[in-house]
Amino acid sequence: MSHAKLFIPGPVEVSAKTFEAFCRPMIGHRSQDFKNLYAGLQPSLQELFYTKQPVYLSTSSAWGVMEAAIRNLVAKKVLVCMNGAFSDKWYDVAIKCGKAAEKCQVEWGQPITAAIVKEKLAQGGFDALTMIHNETSTGTMSPLAEICEVVRSFPDVCMIVDTVSSFSAVPIKMDEWGIDVLLTGSQKAMAMPPGLALFALSQKALDRAATVKDRGYYFDFLEFQKNGAESMTPSTPSIAHIYALKSKLEDIFAEGVENRYRRHDENNNIVREWVRSKGLELFPDEKFASKSLTCVKNNKNLDVAAMVKTLKQKHNFLIDGGYGKIRGTTFRLSNMGDETPATMRELLAALDDVLAG
Amino acid sequence: MSHAKLFIPGPVEVSAKTFEAFCRPMIGHRSQDFKNLYAGLQPSLQELFYTKQPVYLSTSSAWGVMEAAIRNLVAKKVLVCMNGAFSDKWYDVAIKCGKAAEKCQVEWGQPITAAIVKEKLAQGGFDALTMIHNETSTGTMSPLAEICEVVRSFPDVCMIVDTVSSFSAVPIKMDEWGIDVLLTGSQKAMAMPPGLALFALSQKALDRAATVKDRGYYFDFLEFQKNGAESMTPSTPSIAHIYALKSKLEDIFAEGVENRYRRHDENNNIVREWVRSKGLELFPDEKFASKSLTCVKNNKNLDVAAMVKTLKQKHNFLIDGGYGKIRGTTFRLSNMGDETPATMRELLAALDDVLAG
Repeated sequence: MSHAKLFIPGPVEVSAKTFEAFCRPMIGHRSQDFKNLYAGLQPSLQELFYTKQPVYLSTSSAWGVMEAAIRNLVAKKVLVCMNGAFSDKWYDVAIKCGKAAEKCQVEWGQPITAAIVKEKLAQGGFDALTMIHNETSTGTMSPLAEICEVVRSFPDVCMIVDTVSSFSAVPIKMDEWGIDVLLTGSQKAMAMPPGLALFALSQKALDRAATVKDRGYYFDFLEFQKNGAESMTPSTPSIAHIYALKSKLEDIFAEGVENRYRRHDENNNIVREWVRSKGLELFPDEKFASKSLTCVKNNKNLDVAAMVKTLKQKHNFLIDGGYGKIRGTTFRLSNMGDETPATMRELLAALDDVLAG
Repeated sequence: MSHAKLFIPGPVEVSAKTFEAFCRPMIGHRSQDFKNLYAGLQPSLQELFYTKQPVYLSTSSAWGVMEAAIRNLVAKKVLVCMNGAFSDKWYDVAIKCGKAAEKCQVEWGQPITAAIVKEKLAQGGFDALTMIHNETSTGTMSPLAEICEVVRSFPDVCMIVDTVSSFSAVPIKMDEWGIDVLLTGSQKAMAMPPGLALFALSQKALDRAATVKDRGYYFDFLEFQKNGAESMTPSTPSIAHIYALKSKLEDIFAEGVENRYRRHDENNNIVREWVRSKGLELFPDEKFASKSLTCVKNNKNLDVAAMVKTLKQKHNFLIDGGYGKIRGTTFRLSNMGDETPATMRELLAALDDVLAG
């Protein structure tokens, strides 16, 4: 069966160049060759993370580091900002780690706002806050800079931000905004195969971790710091992913980071225009709509499952028919990764064809 | 720089066929295609694990699952069998997880024996035991079947066995021997890139996990069970590794599992003969020497670091110059993965050349 091109919100298509790097012969992960590989990535990664801190590589998906942030930083109570499937789940994960957690729940499709965060944190007793910058299930991007400004006025609170589906699609200024844990995954806008998570830590996060018990080993932030100082990872890493990352960083800086943001914006605007032209609506308020994917509200009562199926069968494109409780009442189109205005228009032309019946 | 062929004890060389599978285009990890891929692996994996239980796939290195076994199964106290760098470290990991742990320490190069395990467990108070079947740092393989027989007489104790460097090189009979957690990694005898861990759980392990608090999410055994029942993983998996695993399982069953064990045995015997022919000795007692790698005692006062360096520069083969506190006083030759008598003899001829100066 031929491969259906992915326009789902991750994983997305992986380029031939990335796959070529992914298949470089193995090297020992305690060798000088590995240390050179690891160290060579740091300047580019730090630029993309807008940080002077080292960037760490975790052989896991992002959930591993999302859990790690809870285990490493929460001693008192974490405020979990919830506005979709993935941010909601983070609350359950905190509870499963045996941590005290409180919900800051807003409706799916609504953003987290600075005002609601301020009100909650003002109640006191929190030492960490989690939020998902770009809630992939609803295509909603919360105003991160404004929220960070509020959190900075609560010096005991560590700011933990998941940017899995926004990282490298829009700028996220870790040091300037005062983010304590900034984490992302490989398979979204980075357009690598899944299996690697990337994260950076503020000094405040490292100092906090040093005071928190039962951090374990595999995701212990202090082990990442110690091994990272010698350009290594605590455990055997996925060397193939790290080679792929090197290749992808070359691509990103060859394009130019600002050009990359602009391309994602342009791709996304093409999708939004198409949505409007069909009489459809965005699921979130447009002001808070994601730049890397579009969650479309099915206000025309389309048979979404049939549309997804026909698009795959007839045009070999795969889109997502909505996540969790909004399956069918929404659908999602990704513009993450290596897509261009031309490839986005190909997808939309195919969708036009399907909708024309 | 040309690639040096790896004869280190992991990662080992990855075949062109495995890499080809590793680079198949991505698919959604909640799709039917993925479920079919996952389910299709189970019969082969169960045969290799000698179990009727499902085999789970963790996007992590083996340490992730080694830590998971502690977090999921230890409520009272774990007995940590220690006879080398990796098994020793498992004790530290248990402590870092906040668990009560007791050492069952023997000298590096000595095996764990049924007698010592029986003596320790008889003291009482344990609900789990960890051991590394094939301690990679010292090339020592402990008599697992005999030890399992002892542990079976302590019904409260969960038997946790790491077979990272022995799995698929020698038979390990999970159900028959009564192993509760059997875990391995991808980059040793399986000859895949690092980044995937495989494990299976007895019903006893699952029942225990259900009673243990703060298991977290990413490595929660019950999440693996729940998602595995639907042919999925709890979090986004490394799809590339799972494609590579499918390819490697085809190779293993095309060769025949018994033939594969025989080949590893033959390869290993060729190395042992060479060791003797040079007037060198095995680091462990030959009766407990590993079948997948050989840890050579440097009783001839060779300059190991120079030998490793020259072998790489002159012949483009990489071996290991000894691990941790036995670096230089030992060195290690791996015969894991796809190696054959012919390729082992190439390595040894190159070593002869280097030693002849």
